[in-house]
Amino acid sequence: MGKGRLEAFSDGVLAIIITIMVLEMKVPHGSTPEDLKPLIPVFLSYVLSFINIAIYWNNHHHIMHTVHKVTGTVLWTNIHLLFWLSLFPFSTAWMGENNFSKWPVALYGFISMMAGIAYYFLAHRLAAIHGKDSLLAKALGNDKKGILSVVFYIAGIGLSFINSWLGFGMYVLVAMVWFIPDRRIENKIN
Amino acid sequence: MGKGRLEAFSDGVLAIIITIMVLEMKVPHGSTPEDLKPLIPVFLSYVLSFINIAIYWNNHHHIMHTVHKVTGTVLWTNIHLLFWLSLFPFSTAWMGENNFSKWPVALYGFISMMAGIAYYFLAHRLAAIHGKDSLLAKALGNDKKGILSVVFYIAGIGLSFINSWLGFGMYVLVAMVWFIPDRRIENKIN
Amino acid sequence: MGKGRLEAFSDGVLAIIITIMVLEMKVPHGSTPEDLKPLIPVFLSYVLSFINIAIYWNNHHHIMHTVHKVTGTVLWTNIHLLFWLSLFPFSTAWMGENNFSKWPVALYGFISMMAGIAYYFLAHRLAAIHGKDSLLAKALGNDKKGILSVVFYIAGIGLSFINSWLGFGMYVLVAMVWFIPDRRIENKIN
Amino acid sequence: MGKGRLEAFSDGVLAIIITIMVLEMKVPHGSTPEDLKPLIPVFLSYVLSFINIAIYWNNHHHIMHTVHKVTGTVLWTNIHLLFWLSLFPFSTAWMGENNFSKWPVALYGFISMMAGIAYYFLAHRLAAIHGKDSLLAKALGNDKKGILSVVFYIAGIGLSFINSWLGFGMYVLVAMVWFIPDRRIENKIN
Repeated sequence: MGKGRLEAFSDGVLAIIITIMVLEMKVPHGSTPEDLKPLIPVFLSYVLSFINIAIYWNNHHHIMHTVHKVTGTVLWTNIHLLFWLSLFPFSTAWMGENNFSKWPVALYGFISMMAGIAYYFLAHRLAAIHGKDSLLAKALGNDKKGILSVVFYIAGIGLSFINSWLGFGMYVLVAMVWFIPDRRIENKIN
Repeated sequence: MGKGRLEAFSDGVLAIIITIMVLEMKVPHGSTPEDLKPLIPVFLSYVLSFINIAIYWNNHHHIMHTVHKVTGTVLWTNIHLLFWLSLFPFSTAWMGENNFSKWPVALYGFISMMAGIAYYFLAHRLAAIHGKDSLLAKALGNDKKGILSVVFYIAGIGLSFINSWLGFGMYVLVAMVWFIPDRRIENKIN
Repeated sequence: MGKGRLEAFSDGVLAIIITIMVLEMKVPHGSTPEDLKPLIPVFLSYVLSFINIAIYWNNHHHIMHTVHKVTGTVLWTNIHLLFWLSLFPFSTAWMGENNFSKWPVALYGFISMMAGIAYYFLAHRLAAIHGKDSLLAKALGNDKKGILSVVFYIAGIGLSFINSWLGFGMYVLVAMVWFIPDRRIENKIN
Repeated sequence: MGKGRLEAFSDGVLAIIITIMVLEMKVPHGSTPEDLKPLIPVFLSYVLSFINIAIYWNNHHHIMHTVHKVTGTVLWTNIHLLFWLSLFPFSTAWMGENNFSKWPVALYGFISMMAGIAYYFLAHRLAAIHGKDSLLAKALGNDKKGILSVVFYIAGIGLSFINSWLGFGMYVLVAMVWFIPDRRIENKIN
């Protein structure tokens, strides 16, 4: 079974998620800079989610590049990832509109964590199919980055209840770690 | 005529349907878990529809994989399927926002049933074009699964008026039956 | 220059237009069939537009199939078509929400007419590039269907001010004429 | 690494941006031409943005056509461009709904300028990778057009505070300059 449509469908869903999030940035009625001020947290929240979705697209691109076989299980593991990513517009808006208060920040962390776990499943399912000598399996290795980001999200959720900006800081940290495309794979390829 | 654009257009429409449904999950004004509570039925409704659309994408992927010829009739049979699927965001939201009360649950069943019938038409139209010895025709066989799910949807609509959760239960049952990608085709391929 | 991205971009835009129109069908607050009643004209309007956009996709598919060369002018002629089609969600909603009253019906006709003209330009631009002996040029011929549908839209706009259902009837008529995919091209191919 | 998915993802995002902008043109409650009048500035704003996004798609198409290699940096430079373009629906709506008053017009100019800079980065990054003898590097040359449009946007922002229509006029001017697809590349190809 070809990986073409899986890539096309995933690209479609990711493109829509990344773009419709902007619809949650409601156009203010007034026309002065003051009217834009309440949108600053919404915008900040949007920027983080835009980068996060872009990272997922980027890394999805990378792991799929090494893949030859796609099974029914892979299709569903991929859909499971897309499900959690589809909740980003909601949690992004809730966090932004409530000025980064604790519960919305914690929910954002929870959904990010679930997406992280789903990505971990997808990457390791693909690696398992292709065998432990495959490019992907070697590139993932013990996957410190994948495990660490889930741990960081859990920490971020906890920290949100102490100070929600600490939670938000943890999410930014994870994004920074992943910002660099998966060099592990790029290195193995080159 | 190539099947490429039919797949691309269908993937696009399905990707948009599955993603814009989340826009019906309106962001609450408050920032506590209590503010999320009224969204639980909306979320439940969203999860079922997400899985349903994913199943359609998955099975569409499977039947198209075996197909070589696409006629004008196939294009329209496919658009007919997409039409009923395009009504999922509406019926999902109506069902969720009304806390699974009888009429919205019945409408959800009706639209699911129509989509089921439309999928049946598409699969059997394709099988007819490729002849009764084709991979697809053999894989479909007497298509118990296709017929049964329509019967279950009809039962679900009826049950909605006794207890709407029974109706909902029937829809979940159909989703569970289809959750497993069409092994019939996978088996014939391998 | 390849026609691949032109097709991909057009498919994307058409898939989004056909799908977001459903967002204009606002979910009612009540949960009885009576609450759905005011949506009947909106739904009727949606069905017509869904079929219209599907026809454009279908015929776009057909004319592009015969095409080898794509120039800068073709790209813009195509974007011009997409522009008028992008106004369908707006005019569909205005017509539906105002229960097919005269001005919204007339506007719907105007936008349909402009899209019809834009499609005529695109088809004939492509035919001109490929020469009068090309498959496309022969298939278009004197293009009675293209010209007639513009004439019918003009008639529909006029009739809207006498009785808006007459106008609507004309638009349905044009859709019926085009419903059959462009046999002219199919015949030349086979 | 293939450029296919980069093109597909960009096409998807651009197709969604260009199409969802129409959702900001809120359907009026009344059904007379007078009810459409307040939408004239919104429509004008929509037309400019539609053309702008179409120009970006067009030119993206052109520069990608000449490209063989795609690096991680290119992926992110491309995402950076998409980020600024994703803000067009917001700034388009703000400008239109406030009848082209100074601050919204200035913000529109700022986002256009940032998108212009991001496109400049992308084009020159690609040219650098392919070497100064590459088709793209030669076609870009000293890239007067790219630099000039950023300068024009800065001028437009300044002029907005004197008379916002002057600012708007500058943006229209830039669109007119780019309207013609990048002949520089087309000439080198032919």
